[in-house]
Amino acid sequence: MRRGLYPGRFQPFHLGHLQVVKWTLQRVDELIIVIGSAQESHTLSNPFTAGERMEMIRRALEGSNIDLSLIYFVPIPDILMNSVWVYHVKSFSPKFDVIISRNPLVMRLFKEAGYEVIEPPAYDRKIYNSTFIRRLIIENNNEWEKLVPAEVSAYIHEIRGDERLRSIAGFS
Amino acid sequence: MRRGLYPGRFQPFHLGHLQVVKWTLQRVDELIIVIGSAQESHTLSNPFTAGERMEMIRRALEGSNIDLSLIYFVPIPDILMNSVWVYHVKSFSPKFDVIISRNPLVMRLFKEAGYEVIEPPAYDRKIYNSTFIRRLIIENNNEWEKLVPAEVSAYIHEIRGDERLRSIAGFS
Amino acid sequence: MRRGLYPGRFQPFHLGHLQVVKWTLQRVDELIIVIGSAQESHTLSNPFTAGERMEMIRRALEGSNIDLSLIYFVPIPDILMNSVWVYHVKSFSPKFDVIISRNPLVMRLFKEAGYEVIEPPAYDRKIYNSTFIRRLIIENNNEWEKLVPAEVSAYIHEIRGDERLRSIAGFS
Amino acid sequence: MRRGLYPGRFQPFHLGHLQVVKWTLQRVDELIIVIGSAQESHTLSNPFTAGERMEMIRRALEGSNIDLSLIYFVPIPDILMNSVWVYHVKSFSPKFDVIISRNPLVMRLFKEAGYEVIEPPAYDRKIYNSTFIRRLIIENNNEWEKLVPAEVSAYIHEIRGDERLRSIAGFS
Amino acid sequence: MRRGLYPGRFQPFHLGHLQVVKWTLQRVDELIIVIGSAQESHTLSNPFTAGERMEMIRRALEGSNIDLSLIYFVPIPDILMNSVWVYHVKSFSPKFDVIISRNPLVMRLFKEAGYEVIEPPAYDRKIYNSTFIRRLIIENNNEWEKLVPAEVSAYIHEIRGDERLRSIAGFS
Amino acid sequence: MRRGLYPGRFQPFHLGHLQVVKWTLQRVDELIIVIGSAQESHTLSNPFTAGERMEMIRRALEGSNIDLSLIYFVPIPDILMNSVWVYHVKSFSPKFDVIISRNPLVMRLFKEAGYEVIEPPAYDRKIYNSTFIRRLIIENNNEWEKLVPAEVSAYIHEIRGDERLRSIAGFS
Repeated sequence: MRRGLYPGRFQPFHLGHLQVVKWTLQRVDELIIVIGSAQESHTLSNPFTAGERMEMIRRALEGSNIDLSLIYFVPIPDILMNSVWVYHVKSFSPKFDVIISRNPLVMRLFKEAGYEVIEPPAYDRKIYNSTFIRRLIIENNNEWEKLVPAEVSAYIHEIRGDERLRSIAGFS
Repeated sequence: MRRGLYPGRFQPFHLGHLQVVKWTLQRVDELIIVIGSAQESHTLSNPFTAGERMEMIRRALEGSNIDLSLIYFVPIPDILMNSVWVYHVKSFSPKFDVIISRNPLVMRLFKEAGYEVIEPPAYDRKIYNSTFIRRLIIENNNEWEKLVPAEVSAYIHEIRGDERLRSIAGFS
Repeated sequence: MRRGLYPGRFQPFHLGHLQVVKWTLQRVDELIIVIGSAQESHTLSNPFTAGERMEMIRRALEGSNIDLSLIYFVPIPDILMNSVWVYHVKSFSPKFDVIISRNPLVMRLFKEAGYEVIEPPAYDRKIYNSTFIRRLIIENNNEWEKLVPAEVSAYIHEIRGDERLRSIAGFS
Repeated sequence: MRRGLYPGRFQPFHLGHLQVVKWTLQRVDELIIVIGSAQESHTLSNPFTAGERMEMIRRALEGSNIDLSLIYFVPIPDILMNSVWVYHVKSFSPKFDVIISRNPLVMRLFKEAGYEVIEPPAYDRKIYNSTFIRRLIIENNNEWEKLVPAEVSAYIHEIRGDERLRSIAGFS
Repeated sequence: MRRGLYPGRFQPFHLGHLQVVKWTLQRVDELIIVIGSAQESHTLSNPFTAGERMEMIRRALEGSNIDLSLIYFVPIPDILMNSVWVYHVKSFSPKFDVIISRNPLVMRLFKEAGYEVIEPPAYDRKIYNSTFIRRLIIENNNEWEKLVPAEVSAYIHEIRGDERLRSIAGFS
Repeated sequence: MRRGLYPGRFQPFHLGHLQVVKWTLQRVDELIIVIGSAQESHTLSNPFTAGERMEMIRRALEGSNIDLSLIYFVPIPDILMNSVWVYHVKSFSPKFDVIISRNPLVMRLFKEAGYEVIEPPAYDRKIYNSTFIRRLIIENNNEWEKLVPAEVSAYIHEIRGDERLRSIAGFS
């Protein structure tokens, strides 16, 4: 059995992320989704709590008929020491065999620790981009809803996450 | 839908814990298992990492034919401030409706925050007791294997967790 | 009896802040002044220690004939988790009924926690603005003294706070 | 003007503490009461939040007709480094001239930093002792009410602090 | 070239420690002395600062004609996560090849990380024992001076460390 | 005997730093080199671990025939409270008499604590500048090797530090 580990902040989880999950599940038996910066929430860069992100991802995966019993979620708070970060992840997470990432720092740290790292194919980062999506939400531009799985936009509305982001930004 | 939250340290997960999980799943639709003191490992009181605990619990639940898609795992590091602990849990965890606990401090903190707390029936704490089980492991007394689900004892052997505990204790 | 809570960093306390305090004291019986980022000092953004800020505010209030026995000061270090910040404040502070703030994040966090938040009337933020005042101090432009209560400018001179700010900025 | 600094945990504030405050106010012009271990609450050793302790002390001083405008409260979280603790206190507190303490570590640390330390006369520590008082509360022995100022016992009842302590201890 | 790493708290550095250093220097080319719990000082268990410990060890090694250019000192604060501690040490320290320790936890953690660990011969832990030495100092029993290198007892007297320990203990 | 303390981040140690060390050793008997932000590594601003920095500096000093037995290295993690930073350094470091620095904040903090601070002569900060050197490394411009001691460039190549910096930057 082979397990992949996919780290991200997922603020929010968008269609590019979903594509990576699907691509990875064709290559591994089980997938650990690491929700990074888990202590963060209610900021312009990190509006959603770790729990909210876990919930929106689960719903999106369910909506794509992905078997949830193959998925692990591991929220991980920042540790502020890159030299030990890999081992921090290792201690909070079930065992894993391979890292899925295109992030240069993440790739470097896991490679220095001797892990196999695979790069998923690039998605279009001009639009499938959490920063861009948050900006659209703040500007009250509904186009953001097309960039995330339907379950994610429904969930964000349900918890009034769009309103939260706008009020933190000083609008409304 | 009603979600329960069951916090513990699970060092290790034993048959008493399993009984609580089963009892709870008859009363809620989904269950969040909070793995507390997630930053701890390799000590006499907390020998296993959060990831190892997550893995041993999953295997035990699978072995009991519990549907894993109804279960959430949330490892939570200590925050050392009881007054904000409930809100820390809340932010790391998907939404929950009711707390399952017999721990006086946990019960008190969630009640002060306005949550419903239900006490599962007591199991025999003289033997289904993680401290007692760890002591048996240190003393190399195989009786501990009868106090945990078969998958847990298999897993602990697989990761040589019994050996780890004995070597930390200064034996072997 | 009704208590208000007014959070700020007060680097330094200026006439706009004083106006808010006076306005609030006509609406509440007692006022808690929360000195945020209490661990910070000796930086361009946060030149004064929490203790110095407490002292300059007290003197300013005394100079305005405000009854000090109605005022509480609560220095609060940053906790870096917005999701628990309100509860952190709650635990360091005497009980309070209403929040006085125009800061979008502060307003949002207290509202999500179920608190009443009132917005004091806006003062002229172009000049009653701590960032602007610190810049004037660094540039050795005496105009800053007109933007703070007389007791505050006297206190800053007394502790040579203006000189400190200039030397941290690399001048003098 | 001469300011004293009196550090303690005040879990709870008792008649011995009150006696020290009164004795000190005959020797200094203003008094800073440092509420230590401010981050702690809801434990057997530290049942009350910093805010609750601030409130119970204020009421006790008011009840003794002490002028509150001469008193400063400074809640200070633990910093876990004795070598910098004095400077931590110094930065959170208005300026002070003399320390009031009989605690050997506190006395030593302030003396090493060059401060004057004065020892107030000993009170009867067999009964005016916070540990003893907490034990009486847990045992539901009303005698504890005679060991604290009347305002403190009233306040503890008002916030159901006695009930909290008993439930944390596993009683009730 | 082969480098050893010798971790300890050295509160204080005694003749048993010195014997380990000498034994090790016959087996490695260079030696890194890790001063653990570096943030601690002024307590009964950890009376000396990391800097004081570095200084007392250097003087003792000089007094034994050990070439200081072969020795590295690395003060390391506690990180409270055993699972990452080895990597924390690795990041604060020059590269090392072998661990010198008889401490079960230290041995276990470095072995799990794939390091070679060698156990130096046991010294008489009944008397060459920092806890015992601190107790003698507190009891004002001069016998402690025979258990540490002459330079260490001279240094402790020079900084009045014996007096500090007694005053923290509540004597003197 | 007179000891100097020279704090820096040394990311990496360059010829300007070496010049300061030489200049200082003509004025003091021993020199403590404080390696600041010791917890940082693997970022664009702080690519090297504290241990790597200690090792590159030692080799550079050896290469300049500086007597290593006169040099102390003290890695110090950030403490995020300027008001106690000097005392943090003091507790991690052997005793020192004078600070060598041209950094405005460092100079200010040590002066406020009553220390003598001396400014070494300025070197040409346009080229002897760690930020500039890191940029050259990222751009794969070999000119950086002329700006650091030969031992430092050899060491950085040995640990593939140039490659690390480029991969963190997203190149290669």
